[in-house]
Amino acid sequence: MTIHPDQERSPESIVLDCAQRARAAQLPLAALSDIQKAEALHAAAASLRRSCGPILQANSCDIDAATSAGLSAAMIDRLRLDSDRLEGIAKAVDAVADLPDPVGQIIDQSTPPNGLQLSRVRVPIGVLGIIYESRPNVTADAAALCVRAGNAVLLRGGSEAVHSNTAIHAAFVEGLVASGVPADAVQLIPTQDRAAVGAMLAAAGLIDMIIPRGGKGLVERVQADARVPVLAHLDGICHTYLHSAADTAMAGDIAFNAKMRRTGICGAMETLLIDAQFSASAAVLGRLLDAGCEVRGDARAQALDSRIVPAGDADWGTEYLEPIVSVRIVDGLGEALAHIAEHSSHHTDVIVTSDDAAAEQFLNTVDSAIVMVNASSQFADGGEFGLGAEIGIATGRLHARGPVALEGLTTYKWCVRGSGQVRP
Amino acid sequence: MTIHPDQERSPESIVLDCAQRARAAQLPLAALSDIQKAEALHAAAASLRRSCGPILQANSCDIDAATSAGLSAAMIDRLRLDSDRLEGIAKAVDAVADLPDPVGQIIDQSTPPNGLQLSRVRVPIGVLGIIYESRPNVTADAAALCVRAGNAVLLRGGSEAVHSNTAIHAAFVEGLVASGVPADAVQLIPTQDRAAVGAMLAAAGLIDMIIPRGGKGLVERVQADARVPVLAHLDGICHTYLHSAADTAMAGDIAFNAKMRRTGICGAMETLLIDAQFSASAAVLGRLLDAGCEVRGDARAQALDSRIVPAGDADWGTEYLEPIVSVRIVDGLGEALAHIAEHSSHHTDVIVTSDDAAAEQFLNTVDSAIVMVNASSQFADGGEFGLGAEIGIATGRLHARGPVALEGLTTYKWCVRGSGQVRP
Repeated sequence: MTIHPDQERSPESIVLDCAQRARAAQLPLAALSDIQKAEALHAAAASLRRSCGPILQANSCDIDAATSAGLSAAMIDRLRLDSDRLEGIAKAVDAVADLPDPVGQIIDQSTPPNGLQLSRVRVPIGVLGIIYESRPNVTADAAALCVRAGNAVLLRGGSEAVHSNTAIHAAFVEGLVASGVPADAVQLIPTQDRAAVGAMLAAAGLIDMIIPRGGKGLVERVQADARVPVLAHLDGICHTYLHSAADTAMAGDIAFNAKMRRTGICGAMETLLIDAQFSASAAVLGRLLDAGCEVRGDARAQALDSRIVPAGDADWGTEYLEPIVSVRIVDGLGEALAHIAEHSSHHTDVIVTSDDAAAEQFLNTVDSAIVMVNASSQFADGGEFGLGAEIGIATGRLHARGPVALEGLTTYKWCVRGSGQVRP
Repeated sequence: MTIHPDQERSPESIVLDCAQRARAAQLPLAALSDIQKAEALHAAAASLRRSCGPILQANSCDIDAATSAGLSAAMIDRLRLDSDRLEGIAKAVDAVADLPDPVGQIIDQSTPPNGLQLSRVRVPIGVLGIIYESRPNVTADAAALCVRAGNAVLLRGGSEAVHSNTAIHAAFVEGLVASGVPADAVQLIPTQDRAAVGAMLAAAGLIDMIIPRGGKGLVERVQADARVPVLAHLDGICHTYLHSAADTAMAGDIAFNAKMRRTGICGAMETLLIDAQFSASAAVLGRLLDAGCEVRGDARAQALDSRIVPAGDADWGTEYLEPIVSVRIVDGLGEALAHIAEHSSHHTDVIVTSDDAAAEQFLNTVDSAIVMVNASSQFADGGEFGLGAEIGIATGRLHARGPVALEGLTTYKWCVRGSGQVRP
């Protein structure tokens, strides 16, 4: 009987070993030029295309297992790859390769009276850990973003996608290695033991930042247990406030789009606040109801349409991710701001108004990662923000907030150029 | 018998209550203008000056207790206030008031093809926790920096300074409140129970960032136990590398200043790496030895001067904070970089060289918060970096690195100005 060596080692020691090798690989990766990193990612994309056969074959193993295990049709669809989807994955890697390299960018420069020439220069963060579920495209997407910014990465995918992830990872790394990137810069944790996740979360000093990509259960667990900094958002309880001075047509379009364009994304509106002085409330709500949206309102909202059901206290703190919206009628901007301060998950909140002073007060007061005037909250997205990609949206208060792409995967160092200064 | 209400409550519930009141107070604080916050801090400084009598009286209680308890003369000196030192504290608060307000600064702006006008705007972090030892000036210094950047703050000083801290805090807040800042924006944790520190470290979501100010034991405990992000550095194992192409006079001056100007600060050099091709090694080391510095060297360094004692393995990882330096002779830049990669605490590392290519390679490769060319590591200081002040130096990899002043006490939000955009 052959025992695979990893079966003799604890998940903790496997993760420790991976992280140490990633740290060692990150130094040569960080030393690569912009062009070298871009070429390596194009090579990884080409290798994914060349490996279409084995990747789809591995994926069919995962699909068979998922079917036998009775996973939902939606989960199986998220898991499934075909040649079109794989081409999409390769294209996304090419797109990341073509983004500008944030490493080496000078954030600011100064020369204090001591004559030292100071500059703050973007550098990679170091070793990142990505913990994700079902969608195998994350293996390539996240790895590409990490490598573009000079970071080594430890990938930990869901067990239901283990064959797909292994095949995608193998192809991706084959491309990187051919371009001079150390293989250890992008590693898939080689055990499905759940204790490996705990070991990653505990690896302060070895892993510099954890990014969970998946459902609320995963994010909640990661945020609760991690000793390593986490970049994530737990809830997207996004508000849209229709101010008394809102253009009625614009208000209706924005409210409808914010809720109904896609109800399952984190930037979807969950609560609609309507000013008591706003003149077209019934029309805005009627349009949502006509489209099949369930509307849960306070007493004053219910009076506007007989189809509106009562909202309970829990509704103001619920991320539905479905065609359901909670609606409250508020008396003025102050009451809207107070509601948002109490219930927002600090993701994206919107005011619709033609009153510039109200807009500025809303922008200044609302304490969320993204605050919008006269636009749909569904724009909360790295691509729409011109970042070219997105590793996720963060609602934490440090490092990076809102959509996070390459810049959020960097930190900075101070470079100091002197001419022999000693300190008096 | 009167029981003080806090004696009936657990340290955890006291900290929880303080943090919730701080969170509530932070919103009105954040809404104050630049001028209002500056005026409030000048009022706090004036109040400190007016309260000179009670503050010095409170301080004498602490000094008496410290003397009875047999504290060292150095600790008692750190604890002691007089009218000059108190004037220094008030002046420092005035100086922070006069620094530019980082809140509201626009980091960058863009307009992607969807026409949304995006800007990233600096905002306060929220509620900060400062945990510090003995020096009562931190009560005013740290509170001033936090308030200047719109943050509420929970202060937890050492028990040996409890009377001084209480008096300084009372005077400081009296000035703030007279200027419209809520009293709860600056709180001193009202219990000396050590469990209160644990409660602060565990208060993820209530406290947004912890800053420890004190000795290595304190920082180590905070970094090990905190669930809240920590801004700090543990060690300052700073290297100076004298390259083969270093100007000999400059190299001698920088090495001497980096070690001997003040040996007890985190930016002091602890290890001197000398290139085997550098021509003035014996002179550089002789100057340190003549000044009473203990030099611990490898075999090649010992051959240069009979006064040099052997360095053990532990010396390369020791922050002496005393007139002691470890010295290693290295063969070229690569060996110096490898030594620094292995032993640096990522605080400040220096190369002395006239070779621009070597300087740039050092700047690019060394992975520390501050990397210097041709200057003394003792310049690692917020004041010397033109930041006007310093809450501390950070060696963590996220949020802020190196000297941290007001900007490091802010985060940002995305402000989005639309004209009715809905997402296709």
